[in-house]
Amino acid sequence: MSSEMDGGVGMNQMRGEQSICFEQPVPILSSASVVGKKEGEGPLGSCFDCIQEDPTFGEDNWESAESAMQKEVMERALAKAGIRKEDLRMIFSGDLQAQSVASSFGLQELGRPVYQLYGACSTMGEALGLAAMAVAGGYALYAGAVTSSHFASAEKEFRFPLEYGNQRPLSATWTVTGSGACILGGGKKKAAVTGVTSGRIIDYGYKDSLNMGACMAPAACDTICHNLRDFGYGPEEYDQIITGDLGEVGQTILLDLLRKEGIDLEGRHSDCGLLIFDNEKQDTHSGGSGCGCSAAVFASYILPKIERGEWKKVLFLPTGALLSKVSYNEGRTIPGIAQGVIVECLEER
Amino acid sequence: MSSEMDGGVGMNQMRGEQSICFEQPVPILSSASVVGKKEGEGPLGSCFDCIQEDPTFGEDNWESAESAMQKEVMERALAKAGIRKEDLRMIFSGDLQAQSVASSFGLQELGRPVYQLYGACSTMGEALGLAAMAVAGGYALYAGAVTSSHFASAEKEFRFPLEYGNQRPLSATWTVTGSGACILGGGKKKAAVTGVTSGRIIDYGYKDSLNMGACMAPAACDTICHNLRDFGYGPEEYDQIITGDLGEVGQTILLDLLRKEGIDLEGRHSDCGLLIFDNEKQDTHSGGSGCGCSAAVFASYILPKIERGEWKKVLFLPTGALLSKVSYNEGRTIPGIAQGVIVECLEER
Repeated sequence: MSSEMDGGVGMNQMRGEQSICFEQPVPILSSASVVGKKEGEGPLGSCFDCIQEDPTFGEDNWESAESAMQKEVMERALAKAGIRKEDLRMIFSGDLQAQSVASSFGLQELGRPVYQLYGACSTMGEALGLAAMAVAGGYALYAGAVTSSHFASAEKEFRFPLEYGNQRPLSATWTVTGSGACILGGGKKKAAVTGVTSGRIIDYGYKDSLNMGACMAPAACDTICHNLRDFGYGPEEYDQIITGDLGEVGQTILLDLLRKEGIDLEGRHSDCGLLIFDNEKQDTHSGGSGCGCSAAVFASYILPKIERGEWKKVLFLPTGALLSKVSYNEGRTIPGIAQGVIVECLEER
Repeated sequence: MSSEMDGGVGMNQMRGEQSICFEQPVPILSSASVVGKKEGEGPLGSCFDCIQEDPTFGEDNWESAESAMQKEVMERALAKAGIRKEDLRMIFSGDLQAQSVASSFGLQELGRPVYQLYGACSTMGEALGLAAMAVAGGYALYAGAVTSSHFASAEKEFRFPLEYGNQRPLSATWTVTGSGACILGGGKKKAAVTGVTSGRIIDYGYKDSLNMGACMAPAACDTICHNLRDFGYGPEEYDQIITGDLGEVGQTILLDLLRKEGIDLEGRHSDCGLLIFDNEKQDTHSGGSGCGCSAAVFASYILPKIERGEWKKVLFLPTGALLSKVSYNEGRTIPGIAQGVIVECLEER
């Protein structure tokens, strides 16, 4: 079976307008997660590989703390994969800091080629998708995907100094201090990436950076609709469709928007931002957010459930709000993007 | 000829430690460039598709001006390629602004899937490499690569307010106001991407953000050495090895570092930062820099020379300095990265 393209030879297939179906599933060889104290106290506390009590991770500042997390999580993912760092042909990485410096400083000691990405909180979807494309395209035997966020570095980057102690509206999300990594490639494994739906930038004109769920929900809706249409699926194809960090507010909007498209996800949708915290008990308002939220939840909770066969097929869909403090202060809107990755249990294949 | 990998099927080949050789060259269907007034007054003035006299590009602020450039350059590249925007399956994009907002706002009206990248001034190498991988892997019939920079938005992002009128040392580079785009894919064309060498993050411990050439030269040296070693080439394999924006200071260091590795590039090396400005006449000190520098020079000058057969084979190597104003103010070093792309004239193939 050959693809329809002229230049280049591939056995992978484009599907519909925005999707890819890999001829051979791309195995996820290992995953690892490192989180902070608050995340460790949440409902997924027992799932994470490492809960670090010290929010500075032994470093001098929040930014370096985030780099330390990325370094730690990559080392753990490599150890669990049982491969040497030299075997890792490329790493797709990202974070929320300006100019992605958490990745720059976190990954340099590994000494492996890096493609840094910026997709806001959708970056783990972007990283997993591109890493799977790299392996399926024959460009890498093993490729890494890693992202991180840190509550304190994100508040400083996007909102107010922590010392200011500002009030947070109930629509606000709480940036997760955490990092997740996956190693893709190698031989037969229990779970694999079998497809990708690339995301478009969707802008409904919202401007409230303390209600990012509302900013991202239209993008999540757009990518889900494209995924189902491109593959000719109904929502029942998936055991779960799991967005990144829409939170309670964004989830409500997403389910409403999808209903208008004739798609009912009730009972089939979850959101990493709602899985990682107990909003009532932990005072996290609408839920968790950040590049590290979907990455840590995927690595610690979603992937193991797929590997155990509890879920046969999942659409993992990290969501990003595309703003900077400059764009916000200049009165720009906050567009969203959602990058979709299909992950399947291989047991029955 | 099949690749050595287990998972996934591909006809592309990994070479050595960090390189890829595409089984089928990936055609570059079109390119376009948009620059500001100062760039238009430089040695390449007659090569650019559009020279905009108004530094705000008709917008209210520098950041929006940069987005307007990305929109304009993509529309021009699509028109020159003779394809509809709907045919573009994915766009790899980036800029220097925090959270890459120039791309977010510049590309949203196109309505096509976007993978945003951050590789500082190396981003056009990253974008071209990943776009070529997407086409050669069978994931896209057509993929776009676009980056931009703007002198005023970059000074504001990384250095001092323009109104402050700070003195610039002679080692400083001048951020190019410009954007370049390429459309990859389709049938036989005159030039194509035939290989990629992915870059590592290299840190020699420099901390001077007004001498970025020195910060990036070790990374350029590292990627060049890997490229030559991975493919078994001598430097004479290439008509030109063209770095992104090392400038005069960085070029001197690169040639010195390579000589220590036994590689003599004398007469075979050029640098987009040295091509775009006349440093003496235009008071640009060490040369041009920015994501838009290598992109605009590649689109307007390097690619046409390859298409005309004046150069048969070029290693295009955009270079990035991985810093943010936060990392700088926290006293961190400035690591570098260089992403290599091999571009060849197809006439004699």
